Amino acid sequence: MEYLKRKILKDGEIKKGGILKVDSFLNHQLDIECLNEIGKEFQKLFSNMDVTKILTIEASGIAVAAISAQYFKVPVVFAKKTESRNLSEVIYVSKVYSYTKDKTYNIKVSAEYLDKKDKILIIDDFLANGSAALGLLDLAEQAGAEVVGIGIVIEKSFQDGGKKLRERNINLHSLVKVEFNDKDEIIFR
Amino acid sequence: MEYLKRKILKDGEIKKGGILKVDSFLNHQLDIECLNEIGKEFQKLFSNMDVTKILTIEASGIAVAAISAQYFKVPVVFAKKTESRNLSEVIYVSKVYSYTKDKTYNIKVSAEYLDKKDKILIIDDFLANGSAALGLLDLAEQAGAEVVGIGIVIEKSFQDGGKKLRERNINLHSLVKVEFNDKDEIIFR
Repeated sequence: MEYLKRKILKDGEIKKGGILKVDSFLNHQLDIECLNEIGKEFQKLFSNMDVTKILTIEASGIAVAAISAQYFKVPVVFAKKTESRNLSEVIYVSKVYSYTKDKTYNIKVSAEYLDKKDKILIIDDFLANGSAALGLLDLAEQAGAEVVGIGIVIEKSFQDGGKKLRERNINLHSLVKVEFNDKDEIIFR
Repeated sequence: MEYLKRKILKDGEIKKGGILKVDSFLNHQLDIECLNEIGKEFQKLFSNMDVTKILTIEASGIAVAAISAQYFKVPVVFAKKTESRNLSEVIYVSKVYSYTKDKTYNIKVSAEYLDKKDKILIIDDFLANGSAALGLLDLAEQAGAEVVGIGIVIEKSFQDGGKKLRERNINLHSLVKVEFNDKDEIIFR
């Protein structure tokens, strides 16, 4: 997606050791025009999949998923990471390991919001080691729902999340795939 | 806002002790059409305030803020609750006390995303005791920015957050104000 490559080159920051920081438009500040372009692109990529629901994970997946859902005209469900006394009694739970924070946490969805008839599109901002995406897949599978695709904004192609998902024959589309050369410059695959 | 009252009566759940649960369209599953109506209403209410940025707090404020921002054509900044190694070095921090979880946590915004020239609209899903809204106000004030309004989807008018904010002459609009009678039935103020 050329628009997004240009946006990353213009507004992304590369930190030492191959960390791409997109806080100025995707992870802290949200550039709504950019999110609209992302949403339209996801709709093109998954237009013939009869998506009935978009599934994502709080917090940084929510904006991308909500804006994208406008083009699919379907609801979003976001998996919760935090304890919440208000969740229903029947929930699906999966474990996600965060490399950034070096800890494992539970992600949860109330059972009433995922149906076995759902055709689910999983959307997230980043794909690195794939732990979050696999957790969301697991939640959908617990509900007996079909995952018709996974849409990722930025895939770190030097980590193995993409490989893990593609080996499972999942309909995965990443809008851009990035890696870094030894000068910490960004390279789009 | 009549649309939202009808939506709450149709899809909200009232739990014992006056807890209004709107997980089916606002806090866990997101009804995008409803969010669009909310966004349009905020735009009407704050149309002459020259808003340059919308400020909210993760996680459940993000969807409302992002969808609403489309009608203002401004970026969103969401304050972070969690530790993140990727935040900038210069940040604004405030403390928020959560009655639901009975704990105090820090909320943070990178200094580079709030400017003293900004005219900020704070948006959040709920207003109860006002702790989150006051924390967001504090962050904007630390940046030297002007808060031109606060837009709340659902105000619990039996708690004192609304009173605290109105006493400070803040331009506060809540789309609906709810309380409960002694049968735990909802009453719109």
